[in-house]
Amino acid sequence: MDPTAPSSGGGDATAPTNTTVTLPPLTLRDVPRLPAALASPPPAVPNPISRHPYYHPPSTFYISPGDISLRHAFFDLASAAPSPLVAYRRAGPRRDLAVDPACARAALVTCGGLCPGLNTVLRELVVGLQELYGVRDVFGVAAGYRGFYGGDEDHVRLHLAAVDDWHKKGGTVLKTTRGGFDLAKIVDGIVARGYTQIYAIGGDGTMRGAVAIFQEFKRRGLNISITGIPKTVDNDIGIIDRSFGFQTAVEIAQQAIDAAHVEAVSAVNGVGLVKLMGRSTGHIALHATLSSRDVDCCLIPEVDFYLEGKGGLFEFLYERIKKKGHAVVVVAEGAGQELIPRTDDQKREQDESGNIVFLDVGPWLKSEIGRWWKREHPDELFTVKYIDPTYMIRAVPANATDNLYCTLLAHSAIHGVMAGFTGFVPGPINGTYSYIPLEDVAVAKNPVDVNDHKWAWVRSVTNQPDFVKS
Amino acid sequence: MDPTAPSSGGGDATAPTNTTVTLPPLTLRDVPRLPAALASPPPAVPNPISRHPYYHPPSTFYISPGDISLRHAFFDLASAAPSPLVAYRRAGPRRDLAVDPACARAALVTCGGLCPGLNTVLRELVVGLQELYGVRDVFGVAAGYRGFYGGDEDHVRLHLAAVDDWHKKGGTVLKTTRGGFDLAKIVDGIVARGYTQIYAIGGDGTMRGAVAIFQEFKRRGLNISITGIPKTVDNDIGIIDRSFGFQTAVEIAQQAIDAAHVEAVSAVNGVGLVKLMGRSTGHIALHATLSSRDVDCCLIPEVDFYLEGKGGLFEFLYERIKKKGHAVVVVAEGAGQELIPRTDDQKREQDESGNIVFLDVGPWLKSEIGRWWKREHPDELFTVKYIDPTYMIRAVPANATDNLYCTLLAHSAIHGVMAGFTGFVPGPINGTYSYIPLEDVAVAKNPVDVNDHKWAWVRSVTNQPDFVKS
Amino acid sequence: MDPTAPSSGGGDATAPTNTTVTLPPLTLRDVPRLPAALASPPPAVPNPISRHPYYHPPSTFYISPGDISLRHAFFDLASAAPSPLVAYRRAGPRRDLAVDPACARAALVTCGGLCPGLNTVLRELVVGLQELYGVRDVFGVAAGYRGFYGGDEDHVRLHLAAVDDWHKKGGTVLKTTRGGFDLAKIVDGIVARGYTQIYAIGGDGTMRGAVAIFQEFKRRGLNISITGIPKTVDNDIGIIDRSFGFQTAVEIAQQAIDAAHVEAVSAVNGVGLVKLMGRSTGHIALHATLSSRDVDCCLIPEVDFYLEGKGGLFEFLYERIKKKGHAVVVVAEGAGQELIPRTDDQKREQDESGNIVFLDVGPWLKSEIGRWWKREHPDELFTVKYIDPTYMIRAVPANATDNLYCTLLAHSAIHGVMAGFTGFVPGPINGTYSYIPLEDVAVAKNPVDVNDHKWAWVRSVTNQPDFVKS
Amino acid sequence: MDPTAPSSGGGDATAPTNTTVTLPPLTLRDVPRLPAALASPPPAVPNPISRHPYYHPPSTFYISPGDISLRHAFFDLASAAPSPLVAYRRAGPRRDLAVDPACARAALVTCGGLCPGLNTVLRELVVGLQELYGVRDVFGVAAGYRGFYGGDEDHVRLHLAAVDDWHKKGGTVLKTTRGGFDLAKIVDGIVARGYTQIYAIGGDGTMRGAVAIFQEFKRRGLNISITGIPKTVDNDIGIIDRSFGFQTAVEIAQQAIDAAHVEAVSAVNGVGLVKLMGRSTGHIALHATLSSRDVDCCLIPEVDFYLEGKGGLFEFLYERIKKKGHAVVVVAEGAGQELIPRTDDQKREQDESGNIVFLDVGPWLKSEIGRWWKREHPDELFTVKYIDPTYMIRAVPANATDNLYCTLLAHSAIHGVMAGFTGFVPGPINGTYSYIPLEDVAVAKNPVDVNDHKWAWVRSVTNQPDFVKS
Repeated sequence: MDPTAPSSGGGDATAPTNTTVTLPPLTLRDVPRLPAALASPPPAVPNPISRHPYYHPPSTFYISPGDISLRHAFFDLASAAPSPLVAYRRAGPRRDLAVDPACARAALVTCGGLCPGLNTVLRELVVGLQELYGVRDVFGVAAGYRGFYGGDEDHVRLHLAAVDDWHKKGGTVLKTTRGGFDLAKIVDGIVARGYTQIYAIGGDGTMRGAVAIFQEFKRRGLNISITGIPKTVDNDIGIIDRSFGFQTAVEIAQQAIDAAHVEAVSAVNGVGLVKLMGRSTGHIALHATLSSRDVDCCLIPEVDFYLEGKGGLFEFLYERIKKKGHAVVVVAEGAGQELIPRTDDQKREQDESGNIVFLDVGPWLKSEIGRWWKREHPDELFTVKYIDPTYMIRAVPANATDNLYCTLLAHSAIHGVMAGFTGFVPGPINGTYSYIPLEDVAVAKNPVDVNDHKWAWVRSVTNQPDFVKS
Repeated sequence: MDPTAPSSGGGDATAPTNTTVTLPPLTLRDVPRLPAALASPPPAVPNPISRHPYYHPPSTFYISPGDISLRHAFFDLASAAPSPLVAYRRAGPRRDLAVDPACARAALVTCGGLCPGLNTVLRELVVGLQELYGVRDVFGVAAGYRGFYGGDEDHVRLHLAAVDDWHKKGGTVLKTTRGGFDLAKIVDGIVARGYTQIYAIGGDGTMRGAVAIFQEFKRRGLNISITGIPKTVDNDIGIIDRSFGFQTAVEIAQQAIDAAHVEAVSAVNGVGLVKLMGRSTGHIALHATLSSRDVDCCLIPEVDFYLEGKGGLFEFLYERIKKKGHAVVVVAEGAGQELIPRTDDQKREQDESGNIVFLDVGPWLKSEIGRWWKREHPDELFTVKYIDPTYMIRAVPANATDNLYCTLLAHSAIHGVMAGFTGFVPGPINGTYSYIPLEDVAVAKNPVDVNDHKWAWVRSVTNQPDFVKS
Repeated sequence: MDPTAPSSGGGDATAPTNTTVTLPPLTLRDVPRLPAALASPPPAVPNPISRHPYYHPPSTFYISPGDISLRHAFFDLASAAPSPLVAYRRAGPRRDLAVDPACARAALVTCGGLCPGLNTVLRELVVGLQELYGVRDVFGVAAGYRGFYGGDEDHVRLHLAAVDDWHKKGGTVLKTTRGGFDLAKIVDGIVARGYTQIYAIGGDGTMRGAVAIFQEFKRRGLNISITGIPKTVDNDIGIIDRSFGFQTAVEIAQQAIDAAHVEAVSAVNGVGLVKLMGRSTGHIALHATLSSRDVDCCLIPEVDFYLEGKGGLFEFLYERIKKKGHAVVVVAEGAGQELIPRTDDQKREQDESGNIVFLDVGPWLKSEIGRWWKREHPDELFTVKYIDPTYMIRAVPANATDNLYCTLLAHSAIHGVMAGFTGFVPGPINGTYSYIPLEDVAVAKNPVDVNDHKWAWVRSVTNQPDFVKS
Repeated sequence: MDPTAPSSGGGDATAPTNTTVTLPPLTLRDVPRLPAALASPPPAVPNPISRHPYYHPPSTFYISPGDISLRHAFFDLASAAPSPLVAYRRAGPRRDLAVDPACARAALVTCGGLCPGLNTVLRELVVGLQELYGVRDVFGVAAGYRGFYGGDEDHVRLHLAAVDDWHKKGGTVLKTTRGGFDLAKIVDGIVARGYTQIYAIGGDGTMRGAVAIFQEFKRRGLNISITGIPKTVDNDIGIIDRSFGFQTAVEIAQQAIDAAHVEAVSAVNGVGLVKLMGRSTGHIALHATLSSRDVDCCLIPEVDFYLEGKGGLFEFLYERIKKKGHAVVVVAEGAGQELIPRTDDQKREQDESGNIVFLDVGPWLKSEIGRWWKREHPDELFTVKYIDPTYMIRAVPANATDNLYCTLLAHSAIHGVMAGFTGFVPGPINGTYSYIPLEDVAVAKNPVDVNDHKWAWVRSVTNQPDFVKS
């Protein structure tokens, strides 16, 4: 029987059927370990949870060495094959630790822009380290990577009472900065202060920094572990299901879209324009559009668009306004960068990573839409209202969904470090918390798959054109 | 090299490593098809999306016949094996339909209690049927299954303008009832009105009803498809990742826990008690506890507990109150049923399904706690405040996360029906929308796995006892 | 020209006109003063705000001795007269103080049930005392009046940093209790700890207690001032415009009414029943009904109602359900007390003040409605859903409107105390913050005026009967 | 006894005292009437509420001809006198109408920018006209004043079912525009369509337009009444207590200030800058600052400020940042206009009313702050985040407080029109709903009184300088 075809009509063919197929081999992509964990025999400290006064963990509580999670939860049996299937180590507590919690000294640091849930991750790292494992020395490093080589005021001892309500606060209590990455000074600072575990929370730049620190640890033969917790409200990190804070951002973005919609419908020929976060990917714009349903057009970095002429944005807007009386446009901040005229200065200017600087697509698009209407329809009333809710979105506390996610993420990180892993990222893969090599995550992109039917769903909701010039 | 053991220390052993293993065979669990779809040759209507004026679907847009999703996204390589691996058909649009949308006549029905997102599912079924497939005849059947054999006023024609803002409304515009399941009358009514597609949204009882209707269709040889969309705010349906409305419920439950916490901390020896939904499972209580972190004890149906004596609830509460000055308890409605004294009447009483009736654990527990304190600590001030937020939780509109989920669920259902599938449930499995035989879902349970470390996380958050009498 | 008649048609009679009338005399109702303030010559300490480094108060900044506010902002010129007109001293900072802030020692206490804004009042008392006047010794007294004769742990020193985010917290950080009023022990405790200013925040019982303390101070000839800040979420305190937390309560009550409305419209013959706070007055029920507009019937303590027979609640509900398919009922907790059957125990039982105990009108009414339908319409589907949002309403933080109100209230209290006033209540009268004798407020009631057209508005919104048996 | 002095120490001087004083005469400022209402004898139609089937209004229900409200609820007895005291007619239902509801034909129009509550006012005008008075012909005029001379599609018949949920929607269902005021065409249109009652909802420009329409009615001798309902989210209309939507705006502004605060505290030397609505007045900025308490500096149009030098903004910010690590600034949109450099074009440009155009203070101030720090402290990290929440504030639905206010406002307007009044504005004066001549309201300003202690409270909260150059 051919599993790739509809089951043919047998005697009881209208009932569920079972068919058996053979799978290709599977590759386990494993994470690095501390030198101590690789020693022979490796250290084996019993997990202190086993001695918990109130709780007696059942045998299934601990993750076994063979527990893995699959990277691809779906594939086409008929295609050349999803070959090879890839798997990662499953995250969670181990029965035996490679690290003695009594000797551990942990440092937490946050880098880059704000994201809902940052403080929850910090809180849960403290709670997990101290309540689950009894680690006494937990420090917050202030103001990003540069805090490692800062003074004593940049190294704040954290404890349960101090972090109690952090999950209800937006932003990061530790403060955050960009840049300041000086590898030698950072690693010197870590060594000088005796840290044995580094938890670095930040975006792709932070992950690349963590890879460098990991390699420097290895080069110096240090028994210090580092784990990277990806923070990107844009959800532009690959391999893991989604980044923390993303659901909260989509939720709050609804308020901005609602406002734009109200402004548009309350005006004669009104256009509401909302810019949402997303430099390299349009996930927030896409999800916010699908959740809202009041959006007429969603522009993302992954899809080129154009303004004038047949199939262009203006033609579409005009038709929509004539049909419905108004229109709502959502634009991701990374969309249309190549359309915005740049001054010579702007052409030369580069950001810290050597990329060409971003221009603000929102005010530009607002102005272009206004000029177009004035030029083409000078006698008709028209209004365009522009909303940039960026900071009102990213500064809120995490919602319940993200708060729970941050907890599981933080605890996963701790369990991995205690098991002797290093140079890894914890994260859910198809719903299963797993450990992924830092260097894989640091280079993974996560663009919206515009060939997938989720993007098609946006089109089915908005009925917008595909901006494919014929 | 043994993949089940930590990778041994090779030359570059502190870097990521790859290991290859062989997987057991995989069984595809397929869904039934309409008689027409099983005919030879089967009908083949091109998907109308291919003729969309604005949008030209790429080749990857359609789901191919070999596209499957895996039920188990993680397993233990060392164990006897996750054998056999099970897969389902992936949900999504097919290039060729087995159903001609021009001849389709769809009926939507909602049964059972309210759940955030009900109206979004209804809206998106209408939008998907009419915008994506051009189905003209879409009807809402009022007041649950009994509406099928009701009068004309129970069959309301639905169209895009009518449903436009339904996703912003709580409850169900179609109205819902319990019971009224009369198989013959229902199927007679369906045939009499010429419906060719039934979308039944409801709980486990509704799913069992849908199985019976499916089998009756088969017995009568009818070319009518039925799909069940599981609605259970408790998340007590198995196989699929979670049910719609669940995330919203956990979010709103935070308000009740916050209030209980404020009441408790503002009193001398204050206890805040919150009852949350969950008759057979404690998912909402568990997730709400993990998201909130202000909860001192979480009681769920899956874990027996007792009040008096060593290791009991009262002892724990007393210690917690003495330590922190207050305590917050969350109890799922199905917890402790066997502890509540029943009158003879209550012992005899049975619900529609022949089960013993549920007693209200909230007021009972509140009263027991009050009596215990008065008896044991008559000279000390004490306050217990009880909150039952059930209707304030289940009557809200879906949040952004659930709204998006409802959209994908509704569209998945339509794509499956149009492909000629019947007797199935659409739903995400490890994040991939799939089709599952209705009869499998109707019998699947989804208890909280109290051996898993997610439950252990609750304990790590609350440090509550495990109520295992020694 | 007769001002009491419509202006007659003169030359330009369609334009605005001016008419002059004579007013009756006005009585200034003044508040008591500390013995020291009555001494001759009284002390005169310059207000430290005059020496503020950043701010140079203009001459109009200070309240002058002749500044008064009118109690009646409207009256009928034709009636016997609003005679006499009553006025109070206007609240605000005085140029000269009767109290030296450097020697002041303030105690803050909260009594009774929770109310949104309690923590804001506390915060602003601390901020105002320390920032505006430089008072160093400010103490929070824990757990209500009984804290005055409690141990050291019941007297917590408060300062700016400690109270910084209190206005964002529900409940009361100081904890609150009922009862425990022992006059001699309280005043002894106050004297023993050297307090010179008492700020008592609580309900009518607390105000009566404050009057007793004030009189005991007077009897003992103590230079200690006491001010009462009325806290009643029910808004059942007279003379002042409204009590703090009331607007927040009305706002949050909308959520409960929305939920009841959704439950009702989603059922066949559905009734949603919401119990709102209000023992002696129905202000919250009235305002919530007017704000919501989804309510079909609003029952308050000021209006008797009956269930059965012509013009009764059941007849009205039946008609409304037949007309609209559902109905929403809001009942204040003090409504219908005389209708609920009492056991002999309940007839005997009295609360601390010797009043007959309140029975819970919500479950009783829910059950009566259910029994009525089952009896009268046994073959028709019916659902009644009952919501009691009490603790979810009163435990939230104050909204912006109430937060601002609490600030002005707290600062008004401080200014009055510093001016040497005592035995007074600060509060807005027709929008002007004023000082009112404590004993006047302690006995003032604030029932809903059911002869006024605001109550008539409720009827115009709900069209409910007036339950006047003919 | 001198009422202007503290009561001297008599026998029982520490108890409340009463003193009697004489008041100056009072002027009643009356509103115009329709020619028909001035006829002799005037028409007298009994109020239909008297024949309500369910409700029997008590004698106190109706407003009597002598019912007035006082403009000044407080004054200084010692000063030259609040002379003369001014009063207005009290709003509310009259026993006898000058207008026959059966012949009435009402038109509602909204002009200018959005404001929370617009749709509630519209809804309640429809509900009040139809439910209370039985007016059948109620029309919404689309798109502002120009709709009066538009086509049939601009005149939409409104009824109860259509407006049922409008109070839960932001914006205005009628759509709104600016300008388009052509007196002759408007009045011709009104006459042509037979409207007898005009309800114009808008800002000060709309009120001035309503005055012109009122005078044109008078000139033509028409029996058409016009009432103006002031809509200004800025609260910049005088005489009345506050404008609708204002409380909602202050509430939502908290979200923006919270976000700015989180951004500021999460950065090293972070500044959060929020621009709030308020062209000529700083009420929103002032109230939002007082409610929030996280603001370090509040800049409003009524107070000049400067950036550089001693006592300037930069000096203050630097000190605050050094002390607290961050600072939050709120700026009203009308503040600092004279500081922003204008191009020659901008100097010439005028708005529709001939005023110089407003420049956007937000981006200018953000940029100035950034340049200042870079220039003065180039080696120190610095971040300034700017938030403009304007449209997210003004597009939300009214909160409960404003919803109730809008109801009372709309019903007051109707009662006045039915009594034969015209050329008036309904509104609360010291809490009493009253009728005020349109022409008085059209010219009244409502600046923040910076000599009052409410503004001083802002300073006491922020401790900001008074920008008085010495």
